Amino acid sequence: MADRPLEELGWKTPLEAARKPSMNQIAKTGVCGIIDPLSPGTPPGSDAATLALLGYDALKIYSGRGALEALGSGVRVLPGDVAFRCNFATVDRNLVVLDRRAGRIVNEDAVKLANSLQRVRLEKSSKAKFLFKSTIQHRAVLVIRGPRLSTAVSDSDPGKAGKKVLEMKPLDNSNEARLTARIANKLAREFRNVLKSHPINDERMKRGLPAANMVLFRGAGTLPNASPLRRTYDIKAACIAAAPLVKGVCKAAGMRAIGVKGATGTPQTDYMAKAKAVVEALKAYDFVLLHVKAADVASHDGKAKQKVEVIEKIDGLLGYLLNNVDVGSTYLVVTADHTTSTLTGNHEGDPVPIAITGPYVRSDYVEEFDERSCAMGGLGRLRGLNLMPILMNFLDKTKKFGG
Amino acid sequence: MADRPLEELGWKTPLEAARKPSMNQIAKTGVCGIIDPLSPGTPPGSDAATLALLGYDALKIYSGRGALEALGSGVRVLPGDVAFRCNFATVDRNLVVLDRRAGRIVNEDAVKLANSLQRVRLEKSSKAKFLFKSTIQHRAVLVIRGPRLSTAVSDSDPGKAGKKVLEMKPLDNSNEARLTARIANKLAREFRNVLKSHPINDERMKRGLPAANMVLFRGAGTLPNASPLRRTYDIKAACIAAAPLVKGVCKAAGMRAIGVKGATGTPQTDYMAKAKAVVEALKAYDFVLLHVKAADVASHDGKAKQKVEVIEKIDGLLGYLLNNVDVGSTYLVVTADHTTSTLTGNHEGDPVPIAITGPYVRSDYVEEFDERSCAMGGLGRLRGLNLMPILMNFLDKTKKFGG
Repeated sequence: MADRPLEELGWKTPLEAARKPSMNQIAKTGVCGIIDPLSPGTPPGSDAATLALLGYDALKIYSGRGALEALGSGVRVLPGDVAFRCNFATVDRNLVVLDRRAGRIVNEDAVKLANSLQRVRLEKSSKAKFLFKSTIQHRAVLVIRGPRLSTAVSDSDPGKAGKKVLEMKPLDNSNEARLTARIANKLAREFRNVLKSHPINDERMKRGLPAANMVLFRGAGTLPNASPLRRTYDIKAACIAAAPLVKGVCKAAGMRAIGVKGATGTPQTDYMAKAKAVVEALKAYDFVLLHVKAADVASHDGKAKQKVEVIEKIDGLLGYLLNNVDVGSTYLVVTADHTTSTLTGNHEGDPVPIAITGPYVRSDYVEEFDERSCAMGGLGRLRGLNLMPILMNFLDKTKKFGG
Repeated sequence: MADRPLEELGWKTPLEAARKPSMNQIAKTGVCGIIDPLSPGTPPGSDAATLALLGYDALKIYSGRGALEALGSGVRVLPGDVAFRCNFATVDRNLVVLDRRAGRIVNEDAVKLANSLQRVRLEKSSKAKFLFKSTIQHRAVLVIRGPRLSTAVSDSDPGKAGKKVLEMKPLDNSNEARLTARIANKLAREFRNVLKSHPINDERMKRGLPAANMVLFRGAGTLPNASPLRRTYDIKAACIAAAPLVKGVCKAAGMRAIGVKGATGTPQTDYMAKAKAVVEALKAYDFVLLHVKAADVASHDGKAKQKVEVIEKIDGLLGYLLNNVDVGSTYLVVTADHTTSTLTGNHEGDPVPIAITGPYVRSDYVEEFDERSCAMGGLGRLRGLNLMPILMNFLDKTKKFGG
């Protein structure tokens, strides 16, 4: 949601340009500040940023995207498993990528292809097994399970069309990294063999669609060493998030992921369904994290006006919460997991605004919720991992240190 | 002194509600900010908070309450000693606590009982000795000295009346923890044997007073590894504090503890006597820490109005200082060691306000000394351990780092 000033918006940020009475009410009645999700100037991935906002030292415990994405996609991941985020892609005969998303292949085709890929056999000697699961459109996850694996493996995904698929390389000198790279490369080759002559792809080509004739691997990851929130703070915690990566982080933190019909992770998501799910969840949980992906999507697509509209819809959602939670006993927090520049289309290392309202906050003089106004707030400038202890302190869930 | 907004005070904090011209003058002429004594959201004990404000990384070096309390009570503690904070208490025949303070037993009775307890003998094989000293009313300290002791021992004090006295348990697998728990349990049993048939208790019961027939142990601690302020900054440092725990921390930092007649650690303390002692001490010391316990006492007792009155008396004390120290060469700092909520009665993890006035501070636009005003100040948001280097820098007592 956070951004930089945009010329297109008269040098306002999308938050500054949006009509957002509910966010402003939270800022006005609450205490505001700015947060460096990881550290000043470091652009965070959504996974690392969410880990930090949940109180973890992400710079220390973050262990790659793949396992979190897999968890968030409903795949079971065990400690020691190494998982990759995968894409169905279209390549030419020289393995040059033509389309990193295979024309955003429909789920139906992707599922059938994935089923065929699951039949590939690994050599017995590797003592490893794998699970390949397609999730949404071209997106898939691969989990490799074996006794001695490592996340120190490079991507095969070259990151853009026009470049050749890469050989995955061990990133350190360990036997584990070499073994994992060997297994991953073997799977990539076998997957290619299955896909290049697959009937689904023949059919796609007949219909003029790009063949999903390659699987790209990236983000080798394992479960982070994250003590469950339940254990650290003695709370019941749930999340409502459509983005698999964010959902995966929450699951890694031991939170219950609550599904919401109509929540899509896109600007067309059902904002009100999410709001209602939060109100419902607060009856059973001490802490509910609600994540809306849409503002990030609009920024990545370079759509400033759409981002403003998304923010106004999020504001409507917050209005529903303000009217439907017990504000005498509930703390409401608004923040962003990172700044995404609608100009560059990238995550940036700028801080994000935060506002906390609730019965016993020391409210400040900030009247509006945006990047610049919140920088004047009573919370000052915090790091992402400071947020949870501050919130848990309001809930009387922190332990005194000392006598 | 710091608190959260209280409904009883029209949603002001006690600091905001108090008339405090001198604190405001310090804020107005000085530079203000907020401090997380340990880290954002972490509720600090007074001992850990004071260690931090004296420049130590309390989260690393804090080593339990007992030794600090003993030091502050005038008992000599050596490195390796393990000390407990103790209470004379009243228990029934099943060791269920009836009164954790034995009716706030008078000093005279407590001293006589303590003398009898000191005659208990430990087995030779333990190679340990002990010192038991009653301090004020039901309060006492126990120092165990021996070659191989540990602070990893649980409390026998169950924390409230109606619960049974606990067996002390080793908290790790070391021989040291097991030995220390064994010695402590042995002393607790022997103390019980002496107390249950002690003539002082017979007399107390005749007078209708609860017998001090048990000693409760808690807060096993050893001296923290705190390099003396003299060595770190080349200063002569003194403290004026009635609370034994705070005094103990200052002694552990190598400071001279100056006694003041009439300083009681209660809201009825002699504020002006403390102020005069500070002015006197500043003639001989580079750095004087003055601690007033009264505001914390009022908060623990849930007395908002009393807390406001205490703050106004502290303000009077500061007025005396402003009029009687050489403001052309002296830096005056006002802060709190932690937030105590008058509502919950607990130490909370909210930050505390700070104001520093003196010849060369970069004064800011803050006009009042309270939690919310200071959050707008020029110091921003600091951690407790940042304070001493900032002050020592004003006194030209810090060393340049680098070339």
